Amino acid sequence: MTVSPSDVDAAAERIRDHVHRTPVCTSASLDQRAGAHVFLKCENLQRVGAFKFRGATNAVLSLDDASAARGVACHSSGNHAQALALAARDRGIAAHVVMPRTAPGVKRRAVESYGATIIDCEPTLPAREAALAEVVQATGAVEIHPYDDDRVIAGQGTACLELLEEITGLDSVVAPVGGGGLVSGTALAVAGHSSRTQVFAAEPAGADDAFRSFASGSLVPLVDHETIADGLVTSLSRRTFALIRAHVTAIVTVTDADTIAAMRFLWERTKLLIEPSAAVAVAAACTGQVPGERIGIILSGGNVDLDHLPWA
Amino acid sequence: MTVSPSDVDAAAERIRDHVHRTPVCTSASLDQRAGAHVFLKCENLQRVGAFKFRGATNAVLSLDDASAARGVACHSSGNHAQALALAARDRGIAAHVVMPRTAPGVKRRAVESYGATIIDCEPTLPAREAALAEVVQATGAVEIHPYDDDRVIAGQGTACLELLEEITGLDSVVAPVGGGGLVSGTALAVAGHSSRTQVFAAEPAGADDAFRSFASGSLVPLVDHETIADGLVTSLSRRTFALIRAHVTAIVTVTDADTIAAMRFLWERTKLLIEPSAAVAVAAACTGQVPGERIGIILSGGNVDLDHLPWA
Repeated sequence: MTVSPSDVDAAAERIRDHVHRTPVCTSASLDQRAGAHVFLKCENLQRVGAFKFRGATNAVLSLDDASAARGVACHSSGNHAQALALAARDRGIAAHVVMPRTAPGVKRRAVESYGATIIDCEPTLPAREAALAEVVQATGAVEIHPYDDDRVIAGQGTACLELLEEITGLDSVVAPVGGGGLVSGTALAVAGHSSRTQVFAAEPAGADDAFRSFASGSLVPLVDHETIADGLVTSLSRRTFALIRAHVTAIVTVTDADTIAAMRFLWERTKLLIEPSAAVAVAAACTGQVPGERIGIILSGGNVDLDHLPWA
Repeated sequence: MTVSPSDVDAAAERIRDHVHRTPVCTSASLDQRAGAHVFLKCENLQRVGAFKFRGATNAVLSLDDASAARGVACHSSGNHAQALALAARDRGIAAHVVMPRTAPGVKRRAVESYGATIIDCEPTLPAREAALAEVVQATGAVEIHPYDDDRVIAGQGTACLELLEEITGLDSVVAPVGGGGLVSGTALAVAGHSSRTQVFAAEPAGADDAFRSFASGSLVPLVDHETIADGLVTSLSRRTFALIRAHVTAIVTVTDADTIAAMRFLWERTKLLIEPSAAVAVAAACTGQVPGERIGIILSGGNVDLDHLPWA
């Protein structure tokens, strides 16, 4: 385990001029629902609409000039693709994004709008990995993995770092867990700055590989999944699993019904547009699974298809 | 005209511990669309989801104890009703809200959830006024008008005051205009603190009484209207018209199509859930009707029926 709390501090310094310092919002009606004082760190209001921009930016800015000049690459159809594309544009370097040809047009256009090159592939993991290896070979671009990367993890932790700077005395912080990059970074920020605070990871019951890994003590890959929180259907890596075992108090699971209810509640009462993955963490607090009187929640993102809302 | 810039300063001091200091958000894609640096003052993230809470709170806190003890009253089916109900609860006094029996259940429940008493009436202006007069007579409650009130106007201005404290060098500020309370308060804040800044009011083309009043120099009441921005279908009062004539540079109008496009753009790109009335001001900037390189926009509120979105 080479990534440490001080890497989160260094990342915050490195990315400061590139990221939004997102607001922390509160809501009396949410407090009532959760039975605690809740502090929402609004990464849905981050650039590209997700915390992913922090990790991608830290990774891109950590490259030496010679490496950076060859560009960066990833395979992703989600928020990491947009994040890496914009982080690369900020530094003035190329980004190559491998996307399955089935990815929605809106996601494709967003990545293109940030100036990245899209490489189409078949919608299978082997096809994606093969296409990524090919572009890396051809261009010399540096692969930036969405979560299995110390620089990315340190960057993701800066959201919680800002939260801890602004709100003192938190009993718990909860973040959603998919690949584990956000919750790993969050846990490192807490380890460095607030030893009294416990860290919880929230996961959909229909994609509970992290929960089962944590309970069994050995990495369980995600095979089948059924959840509305499509941003969380990824397996932990050995790196993130180790960080979670070292720093996270518990992994809690929520049903999609609870996630949808939490999402709608936040839209209606706080006017914060969050995606289902973010609502998973809110649902964890609203179902009483996160202890403490002062709870921080990392609202991971707000990228939603407005034409297909879960309550429609 | 008795309300002045210093009343806005006093209101800010008075309401400080009761209101959210809402964030100011920026978006590179919005800047591109508007051709300017745009600063969004997020009153959709205010308590009750609208700037109205500022004015209502200033009015309620301005009452002497004897008056306050008799409670407050209004007729409203919109954000002012919720705002007054919560402001009264904050002070521990009664609120009486006259609502047409046709008001949506969700608005009714929101007002009730803040502990106000609802008085039903027929959905006509005379019926509303008669019911309000009756409850004032019966209870001795103080009527708090949604915009024709100096205390309310001063309170609404505190949103812009915070914006000016945080963002310097604004060329223009734009706010939506219905009854004119928000834009009057906004103009007073600007008059007191940023003489270089011009103030614009944005109005739906389908309810353009303020535009016609401003152009003709005499108060034109709103008769027919057809707009999605239901929060703006009110006439100016003599008080707000005088303030607008004294302090506002121009009133600009936008189509509902532009409003819906601006609303969806903001939801998608900034993850800020705003209501059509707020989108009217964004649309004014996006259609090039607000001059300047640095433009402030008061996002007035975020109260939307999530089951009936305008693009569905």
